[in-house]
Amino acid sequence: MYSSNPAEQVKPTIQNRNALNLDSSQAVRTAFFISDGTAITAETLGRAILSQFASVPFETRVLPYVDSLERADDAVEQINMAYQRDGLLPLVFDTIVNPEIREKINAAESCNLDMYEGLIGRVAEETGVEPDGHSGHAHDDVDSETYKERIDAVHFALDNDDGARTRHYNAADIILIGVSRSGKTPTSLYLALQFGIRAANYPLTEDDLYDNQLPKALRDHKDKLFGLLIDTDRLVKIRQERRAGSRYSSYQQCQQEQRAIQGIYITHGIPSLDVSEMSVEEIATRILQMTGLKRRIG
Amino acid sequence: MYSSNPAEQVKPTIQNRNALNLDSSQAVRTAFFISDGTAITAETLGRAILSQFASVPFETRVLPYVDSLERADDAVEQINMAYQRDGLLPLVFDTIVNPEIREKINAAESCNLDMYEGLIGRVAEETGVEPDGHSGHAHDDVDSETYKERIDAVHFALDNDDGARTRHYNAADIILIGVSRSGKTPTSLYLALQFGIRAANYPLTEDDLYDNQLPKALRDHKDKLFGLLIDTDRLVKIRQERRAGSRYSSYQQCQQEQRAIQGIYITHGIPSLDVSEMSVEEIATRILQMTGLKRRIG
Repeated sequence: MYSSNPAEQVKPTIQNRNALNLDSSQAVRTAFFISDGTAITAETLGRAILSQFASVPFETRVLPYVDSLERADDAVEQINMAYQRDGLLPLVFDTIVNPEIREKINAAESCNLDMYEGLIGRVAEETGVEPDGHSGHAHDDVDSETYKERIDAVHFALDNDDGARTRHYNAADIILIGVSRSGKTPTSLYLALQFGIRAANYPLTEDDLYDNQLPKALRDHKDKLFGLLIDTDRLVKIRQERRAGSRYSSYQQCQQEQRAIQGIYITHGIPSLDVSEMSVEEIATRILQMTGLKRRIG
Repeated sequence: MYSSNPAEQVKPTIQNRNALNLDSSQAVRTAFFISDGTAITAETLGRAILSQFASVPFETRVLPYVDSLERADDAVEQINMAYQRDGLLPLVFDTIVNPEIREKINAAESCNLDMYEGLIGRVAEETGVEPDGHSGHAHDDVDSETYKERIDAVHFALDNDDGARTRHYNAADIILIGVSRSGKTPTSLYLALQFGIRAANYPLTEDDLYDNQLPKALRDHKDKLFGLLIDTDRLVKIRQERRAGSRYSSYQQCQQEQRAIQGIYITHGIPSLDVSEMSVEEIATRILQMTGLKRRIG
């Protein structure tokens, strides 16, 4: 249903694999992430484990809300079909709390990797408390202060994106700065959604870069500034996706902007991070670590 | 460092707990989420497991980037200090790949819950492939198509937030509609960041609500529309945070808007979801499930 591989239909089946003389180490194996909730937990841990086996071609399926026996039957059918098709036992990563549903899933033709079983048992043993047995909200309680903090942070990030407004900087937890397309916007939004942090962002454009001064709007908020840096090759590549062949995306322009902004960070003592090799998650986590900024949620 | 509990300093220590005659079932226990990467995986699964023990008061600490023996020593010190302070063994959820670092962490005074060990071993056994042994990017590879899809989706969501622009709706994967403050914006951004889906959103305001017609901008895109519904009490509460005592946040107004929009969804056959009890993660996952919309990443 949520297959990310459009080539699925033409894959060899267990029947024709032998005829095609295919080596099973090259064969695609299906990995399922199954839960009675969003399946975000099962997927997050499952993908982290699969990333340890980069040479194995996996096709992944996410099955959220398997919260009834009927849905469990449907999931089992999908698992068994994947086995028939691939000729390899599917890996099933699951975080199902209900024992009856879990039993059904465990009975499918798969290599079953129950993520909760052992860990929940050990926590129960250590705390002397029985687990609640319902699938919880992994992230936030809809009626809590957490929800409000999170939504407020998202709206703050939006309202203060790309230097759109600067009059709310007193309320900002952090102000990200950097050249155009260095990753400020997705990082601001991730900080808001994941950590409830109010992150504004302000682009340093050509007008701001070459006098080694901070733009006026930023001067009173120096303690909140955090600078992003990006490798010139990578910046060129990202900008070319946007405006290929322009001065904006030329190597010379990108290099000049990066050099100038690095000078500003050094002159004004602004902490900065080279984000060239980082995912949005990594940038956000590193910023928390470097600044000591406290999460508002989580 | 990232403690979310400002009251930490006044908590009873192992020394004064006996003197204070405190019951250990009321005592706060510390849970650590530790990784050599962002610790997102350890935290996600760890919190899901803790949510099964709602009656136990936990204080949580996230320690990302424990990627050297020095940092491991520092983490061990924090774990041991928590044990001294709480008088209860801390729970340590970890996803550390490097065996030397893992060994150090495992030697701390804790109830150690290694999330990788068993699962990685079983996948290795099933596939016949040895794990890579490096800590991977759980989410996206910075040079991949995934990165581009994700960033493009984030910018799409921003550019097309709150009905700001309607001329790009041909490029949208989905257009969320709903009354003001029904959760459209955070859901659009989450769909973009997590799944790479291009989600626009359009608010139905008073001008749009009472003739049972779709606004002009939406009529050509009926197949992309998805409606959010929200309980009147909840909507009142959310709007009062924003503009207390106004007509906008009055019960009558919120109820009228909800009734009108429900009529529009029914009249025009627009799929809809009551998001009153849902976190942003749940709303996004349910939308994927209900529409069959395919993720662009993950």
